[in-house]
Amino acid sequence: MNEIKIFSPATVANVSCGFDVLGFCLDSIGDEMVIRKTLEKGVKISKIEGADLPYETNKNVAGVAALAILEASNANFGVEIEIYKKIKPGSGIGSSSASASGVVFAINELLGKPFNKEQLTLFGMKGEAVASGVEHADNVAPGIFGGFTLVKSVNPLRIIGLPTPTELYATVIHPKIEIKTSEARAILPKQVNLSDAIKQWANVGSLVSGLYTSDYDLIADSLNDYIIEPFRSQLIPHFDKVKNAMMNAGALGCGISGSGPSIFSLSKGLGTANKVAKEINKIYSKTGIEFDIHVSKINTEGVRIVNSE
Amino acid sequence: MNEIKIFSPATVANVSCGFDVLGFCLDSIGDEMVIRKTLEKGVKISKIEGADLPYETNKNVAGVAALAILEASNANFGVEIEIYKKIKPGSGIGSSSASASGVVFAINELLGKPFNKEQLTLFGMKGEAVASGVEHADNVAPGIFGGFTLVKSVNPLRIIGLPTPTELYATVIHPKIEIKTSEARAILPKQVNLSDAIKQWANVGSLVSGLYTSDYDLIADSLNDYIIEPFRSQLIPHFDKVKNAMMNAGALGCGISGSGPSIFSLSKGLGTANKVAKEINKIYSKTGIEFDIHVSKINTEGVRIVNSE
Repeated sequence: MNEIKIFSPATVANVSCGFDVLGFCLDSIGDEMVIRKTLEKGVKISKIEGADLPYETNKNVAGVAALAILEASNANFGVEIEIYKKIKPGSGIGSSSASASGVVFAINELLGKPFNKEQLTLFGMKGEAVASGVEHADNVAPGIFGGFTLVKSVNPLRIIGLPTPTELYATVIHPKIEIKTSEARAILPKQVNLSDAIKQWANVGSLVSGLYTSDYDLIADSLNDYIIEPFRSQLIPHFDKVKNAMMNAGALGCGISGSGPSIFSLSKGLGTANKVAKEINKIYSKTGIEFDIHVSKINTEGVRIVNSE
Repeated sequence: MNEIKIFSPATVANVSCGFDVLGFCLDSIGDEMVIRKTLEKGVKISKIEGADLPYETNKNVAGVAALAILEASNANFGVEIEIYKKIKPGSGIGSSSASASGVVFAINELLGKPFNKEQLTLFGMKGEAVASGVEHADNVAPGIFGGFTLVKSVNPLRIIGLPTPTELYATVIHPKIEIKTSEARAILPKQVNLSDAIKQWANVGSLVSGLYTSDYDLIADSLNDYIIEPFRSQLIPHFDKVKNAMMNAGALGCGISGSGPSIFSLSKGLGTANKVAKEINKIYSKTGIEFDIHVSKINTEGVRIVNSE
């Protein structure tokens, strides 16, 4: 294999109760990337479409992630990367991590798959750090593993793939405003009430249980965030209206995707997910703020090959 | 059925990471109770062996729980209760809740089983409140449901029964010292670090996952308490030594049982659980403090009938 084209999906991190820990993978929105072996070693980014991102390897998420996996593998080749960006940077659905996950998945294929998914996540995290300053796996993990993931710990990295109930669909709205990650972090408290933390970990436990048993009612009951949402939702215009509309349309639950501004919901069945989309479209159409809406099944595969030669 | 004798097992609440939420049921230690229908309505406690507990119905955990279920059922009979206490009050392995769980289970049988397990837990919690001042389900739930339980919320009460890996065994040491529940509560912080809370809910999520997949390694990795143990362990003499000995003997993990003073561990296989018992026996034998040690499989049934007529 000398060249591979992949689809690298958007992802939703945190999932209400699971701040810094849970994530899931979308299917209807993602970047495409072409990665081509070159005789010359090193990484060259030869094309970026759809976003204004740096071509310098060391400043580019995909570039840094590519270097990490190539160096670890002692590859006797280099790569040329084309990036076709569909996920808007700053949207809160894992734009930077899609670049990172995609490139490490692709290079692993070019290498003959020497690395497992946890190792690929580690390489991806090196790239993610370029965008966020922190090597976190919240979005890289669901991108690489697919489905729902629990990042049990980052150091050492331990990721648990969780089952995905078959009728689960996501609806995501991306209001096109900018929230700086630094601001979204600064707004969080250093300390939280023990009583709130207890409710939060009860919900994490019951959400995980609900995923194993496909108990949609329990999943619905678990999608509550007592800790982060009260702070970060202030940064997202019309958050409460959107949340109410999502719930009234029949969503199981909803919350902030990553650090926002995107808001996600989970629904049982495509019909409900589409209804949620329709209702939030009505709300945001009146705001004057540009937005995208994505309705998607949960992608249980993660990054996938489009074609290769 | 006019008379029933039941075995009401001891239980371990909190389970390291799952403070106020998780619990599991023991098998080798528990109370026996005989509950007999009487023509006269109301509840009479006719015998208590093994502990110095009040005979007045309204001051006795079993008495109050019995009244709760009888009143809710509009029973046309009363009951007489004999309590054969094996679980020492104040041991931290659910002594009071065993009285509560046992009596509501038994009366439900005498009534022809009109109530489900969640309803029985609610009645049991009324009794538990006599002992602790709070209607909590940490110990009543695993006693009624058996196995591992997650109390997702108390109001409304929602309990999730979790699967029990078949090779899981518990070793529990009860140092016979008194820790007042009020003191064990007062020592806890009202606020906790967000970073610690995140680690805690990651562990709750991964422990639940480990129970579903019988992943003993993951269970081991999840049995950590960053929030409560640093405070409450100060109240338990030689806690660190016991913990080290348990881990060195091969336990998957350990922690404080309920609010202490008992310390529990979980092991894969009876052999390891026995080895843990041997090692902690060595340690506590040198302290001059009296103690009991229990080795037990996880009881997946909960309260059970010994005989009935």
